[in-house]
Amino acid sequence: MKTPVYEERCDLPPGFRAAGVHAGIKADASKPDMALLVSDVPDTLAVGMFTTNKVKAAPVRLDQARLANGRARAVVINSGNANACTGPQGERDALEMGRLTAGALGLAEEDVLVCSTGTIGKPLNLDPIRKGIGMLAEGLRADGGPDAAQAILTTDTRPKMCMTRIPVDGKEVTLSGFCKGAGMIEPNMATMLAYICTDAVVEPESLREAVRTAVNQSFNRISIDGDTSTNDSVFVFANGSAGNAALSPEHPDWSLFQTALNGVIFDLAMKIVWDGEGMTKFIELRAKGAVSDAEADKALRAVANSFLVKTGWAGTYPVWGRIADVLGYCGVEIDPDAMGIEYNAIPVMRGGMSAGTPKETLDAVISENRYTITVDLGTGGSGTAVLYTCDCTEEYVRINMF
Amino acid sequence: MKTPVYEERCDLPPGFRAAGVHAGIKADASKPDMALLVSDVPDTLAVGMFTTNKVKAAPVRLDQARLANGRARAVVINSGNANACTGPQGERDALEMGRLTAGALGLAEEDVLVCSTGTIGKPLNLDPIRKGIGMLAEGLRADGGPDAAQAILTTDTRPKMCMTRIPVDGKEVTLSGFCKGAGMIEPNMATMLAYICTDAVVEPESLREAVRTAVNQSFNRISIDGDTSTNDSVFVFANGSAGNAALSPEHPDWSLFQTALNGVIFDLAMKIVWDGEGMTKFIELRAKGAVSDAEADKALRAVANSFLVKTGWAGTYPVWGRIADVLGYCGVEIDPDAMGIEYNAIPVMRGGMSAGTPKETLDAVISENRYTITVDLGTGGSGTAVLYTCDCTEEYVRINMF
Repeated sequence: MKTPVYEERCDLPPGFRAAGVHAGIKADASKPDMALLVSDVPDTLAVGMFTTNKVKAAPVRLDQARLANGRARAVVINSGNANACTGPQGERDALEMGRLTAGALGLAEEDVLVCSTGTIGKPLNLDPIRKGIGMLAEGLRADGGPDAAQAILTTDTRPKMCMTRIPVDGKEVTLSGFCKGAGMIEPNMATMLAYICTDAVVEPESLREAVRTAVNQSFNRISIDGDTSTNDSVFVFANGSAGNAALSPEHPDWSLFQTALNGVIFDLAMKIVWDGEGMTKFIELRAKGAVSDAEADKALRAVANSFLVKTGWAGTYPVWGRIADVLGYCGVEIDPDAMGIEYNAIPVMRGGMSAGTPKETLDAVISENRYTITVDLGTGGSGTAVLYTCDCTEEYVRINMF
Repeated sequence: MKTPVYEERCDLPPGFRAAGVHAGIKADASKPDMALLVSDVPDTLAVGMFTTNKVKAAPVRLDQARLANGRARAVVINSGNANACTGPQGERDALEMGRLTAGALGLAEEDVLVCSTGTIGKPLNLDPIRKGIGMLAEGLRADGGPDAAQAILTTDTRPKMCMTRIPVDGKEVTLSGFCKGAGMIEPNMATMLAYICTDAVVEPESLREAVRTAVNQSFNRISIDGDTSTNDSVFVFANGSAGNAALSPEHPDWSLFQTALNGVIFDLAMKIVWDGEGMTKFIELRAKGAVSDAEADKALRAVANSFLVKTGWAGTYPVWGRIADVLGYCGVEIDPDAMGIEYNAIPVMRGGMSAGTPKETLDAVISENRYTITVDLGTGGSGTAVLYTCDCTEEYVRINMF
């Protein structure tokens, strides 16, 4: 099987167009705040995965309903206001935003998705949205992906794009996506949103399953601050313009397609961690020796979300004692006298106590901007997990104080 | 019933003596690092409550075993090193620390408790400990409470003391305590420890129950950063020198005694929150409308431990949208369209959306250094809870980076 090559670009597959504009939701006129992504192909497949938060923004609830048929032609996005906790008026505003977009594009309302990201609890002002939709519809371009990628950002410091091309039935298939997010949630300013387009022909049920697989290995394996947003959404559109024989697990190129989809989505997810608010260290957390994968996962999430561990990572001290402490209180089965911790495969704790590794050896690891910490819960079980996270710095506090 | 009056002092009850010295565990010679508290009365009752962390420091395990008989005469404490994650050597060091103290005081080893607080994972150096125990035994004084209160501190900015006197059978009974802690846990530097002494005569089982009641309303209702230490310990000593008829729920002054015990311990717990690392805001969190008290408690702990909520409190913006978000993901039953949030009884969110309260009204509340936030989970249930917490500032990050 060919190994896909991933590029930090967002060239849209044939049959997709996009645009990004400044409509006036953000005060700063240099910052675009609305985006539009359109498939020109009728019956384009669309799969969405949404936040598990019980408090769901109005557009999330609208999109969940509209994707019941597995199809969509366009998604309109605004940044600067999440349209969450906005009550019945928020529902009406999301509907209107979709209706205006459908009108401008000549599409059925049911084929248009709506996304919002930004401040929670503030009513949406439809005046700039109305103006923006007109500008977006006129500005749609086949090379508009990067503009859209820029327009959905909030506290992000840079756009996040990834694409690859793979051969399917000897035809070239493109997978190209962009996303935003600088935390799992920043309710005052942001949210995680991702859009992936492909021209592949795919069986609807197979696409749904492939997206679930890819998201579980990527967006569901990252944490900036442990908070789950009201607006988190991942969308995959497949418009079939590549003309290949429909992909499903029976197709000889299926695993290449799944690999490429996994790769694009994983790359986008890692770009979110690397742009985590105020982050200076990328930490790959691994757990082993747990009684189950679920317990390994629970332990890693507790480590990744400990104030003391995260602030410690920002410093110059290997905080293994704090990690041991978290493992002790996080509610999973451990053997305190058999636990171990490694930094990049260098033992730091062994048998529940210091492994005696020289400070200079550990200093060399933690001075890197990316390293791996592996915890062994000591139960002898075969449960494992991985989680990608980052440190918590003074800059994180500054960003989120206001 | 008389209302007890609480003072920020630590005058020990008759029959108790204490001392605090610099033994050399901390590098800074101006910082005392060892304390000793002794009861001169044989058969002094002692109750201990300890961390629920599965990773328990060696002295915690020792004290749990020694308190099985409900009696102790002395506790020796060092700050600067937690003697946690130190393996079999740590167990031997804790034993030796107790043995040396018993020898210096002429007590049975089993009557001496041992506490350590400070860095996790570093072997204890017994040289300064040995020297310190000699100095402490010679320096014991009836007015040594404040010295001991000072010597147990780590990242605390000030000693934490509270005392009250109540009449029991017409005799004066003293309850006097001190504690340390600037976070539920700071494994690199600190831990929560508390010591309360009384000269009351109390039935052993009644004392145990009274301590449990008092701790559940106080130390178990606070959170600085959501982390539970390897060393957290609360001790109550009752030496009976007041000579009252033994207190139990049948005694006419029992509820006054329980009230005074609750009051002293609650005051000490609040002093920990007010000295939370880097804190600038004291937040009283209240929940109602939950399906059970347990769910109300779970919701408040999630709010208190959210990075975004805590950093938001440090700022100048009422972060109700972030609180609503946490209520949505924390795993308790809510009605998103019926939830409410109040700041000092002023509605901020009502029916799942903004209550439209003017910004100036909320600004006035959040500019205070202490305010109450009440969340209504909207289920119509009768579950309630309270939790005392604080904000997370850049200073918190700075303190914990190293």
